[in-house]
Amino acid sequence: MTDQSFSRDTLEARLRQIGEERYHDKHPFHHRLHTGECTMDQVQAWVINRWYYQASIPMKDAAFMSRCTDPQLRRIWRSRIEDHDGGTAEGGGIRRWLKLAEAVGLDPDYVASGQGVMPATRFAVDAYVRFVRDAPLIAAMASSLTEMFAPAIHTRRIEGLLEHYDFATTETLAYFSQRLNEAPKDVNFTLHWVLDHALTRADQEAAIAALTFKTDVLWAQLDALWHGYVTGQAPPGAWQPGEGQLG
Amino acid sequence: MTDQSFSRDTLEARLRQIGEERYHDKHPFHHRLHTGECTMDQVQAWVINRWYYQASIPMKDAAFMSRCTDPQLRRIWRSRIEDHDGGTAEGGGIRRWLKLAEAVGLDPDYVASGQGVMPATRFAVDAYVRFVRDAPLIAAMASSLTEMFAPAIHTRRIEGLLEHYDFATTETLAYFSQRLNEAPKDVNFTLHWVLDHALTRADQEAAIAALTFKTDVLWAQLDALWHGYVTGQAPPGAWQPGEGQLG
Repeated sequence: MTDQSFSRDTLEARLRQIGEERYHDKHPFHHRLHTGECTMDQVQAWVINRWYYQASIPMKDAAFMSRCTDPQLRRIWRSRIEDHDGGTAEGGGIRRWLKLAEAVGLDPDYVASGQGVMPATRFAVDAYVRFVRDAPLIAAMASSLTEMFAPAIHTRRIEGLLEHYDFATTETLAYFSQRLNEAPKDVNFTLHWVLDHALTRADQEAAIAALTFKTDVLWAQLDALWHGYVTGQAPPGAWQPGEGQLG
Repeated sequence: MTDQSFSRDTLEARLRQIGEERYHDKHPFHHRLHTGECTMDQVQAWVINRWYYQASIPMKDAAFMSRCTDPQLRRIWRSRIEDHDGGTAEGGGIRRWLKLAEAVGLDPDYVASGQGVMPATRFAVDAYVRFVRDAPLIAAMASSLTEMFAPAIHTRRIEGLLEHYDFATTETLAYFSQRLNEAPKDVNFTLHWVLDHALTRADQEAAIAALTFKTDVLWAQLDALWHGYVTGQAPPGAWQPGEGQLG
């Protein structure tokens, strides 16, 4: 540790502060969603666009493993892919997301096709996958630490959706309740790994920048969603209300 | 299918022909190894350098999953990573390779460090990982089809090593016997997938070129091994006999 490096506690506090300042639980779109102000068109637009993020997460974790030369770290990381993709027959976060899609009245095949996803959503998510593949290892790991902040927003979302929307049931919101079980194990491991390995100021700053970048990835998706479906200026080729409805 | 495309049977025959012409079972280093002509230094050099290939296979399969947008294909492919990396506590091909390393008198930690691996080995293996990440999907899949030819060489190797070397036992050669169980499921799936999806002549030629490329990756590693440790001109920084021995 050099003189200018942060203490372990300070680094953890800096990382947590990013959540307080920039995590997408502060985004006005989430406020609308969780307080019942979203129209069903806006809910559908959210489900369609966030599908692209959900479906890219296993690719992001595979990208991490593709550049991770430590077998033990790969073995631990692999459970993230299992959590999201599930088995060949059943299970997994992305299948649960398609259940939510059905519940809000969308054809799950339409949603799974990725058709109608806004380019801005793709750009943000693809930037995340590339970051995790190419950035230094500590930064790649730190970028996943938004999961530190996820349980609070998932809890808030489950409560808000159950209160305000007919489609919301324990079953249709299973994606979020399941993440409450899965995320703590991932974040606990990764936070400790980052705190253990980011010992120089340069590595600590890289971890902070990586987590900041990840909050940008999440925020940009909601900005695009607001512009497209609250302001009402969805770009050419993007989903239009009424498309992809359950048959 | 266009007029100029191969029939399914012709494509399969073309792919199998690559094995007959170019698979590394024909390489003179393997002839030496399997007939007991290798010195123990040469066996150790082989184990050290091939470690880099073995250890990169899960990264290669993760690279495939990182660019694979079909969740079901990812779910099926994931078992390859499980086979090679094993669980967090035990199992997996790379742990079995380190057992072989110990059996031939090498310190498994030295082998696992990758120290002493020849640059030519790294260049060939790294080219394979990049190919699988970046090439069109059919080519990326077809490059794994050298597994069609692997059972024969593994069987020959187990017999040859058991006959000629004291270190060889059913236990120390478990890496190879286990691959005899695993490879057929992978190759059966992938061969059928490639035959089902490579319908245009362009895609069929890409599959043939990818498998040819993969045989080059394997062959180049043995050429480097021969030059380094049979001809006896190992490059600067490469393992020297006597290094990394079991304490």
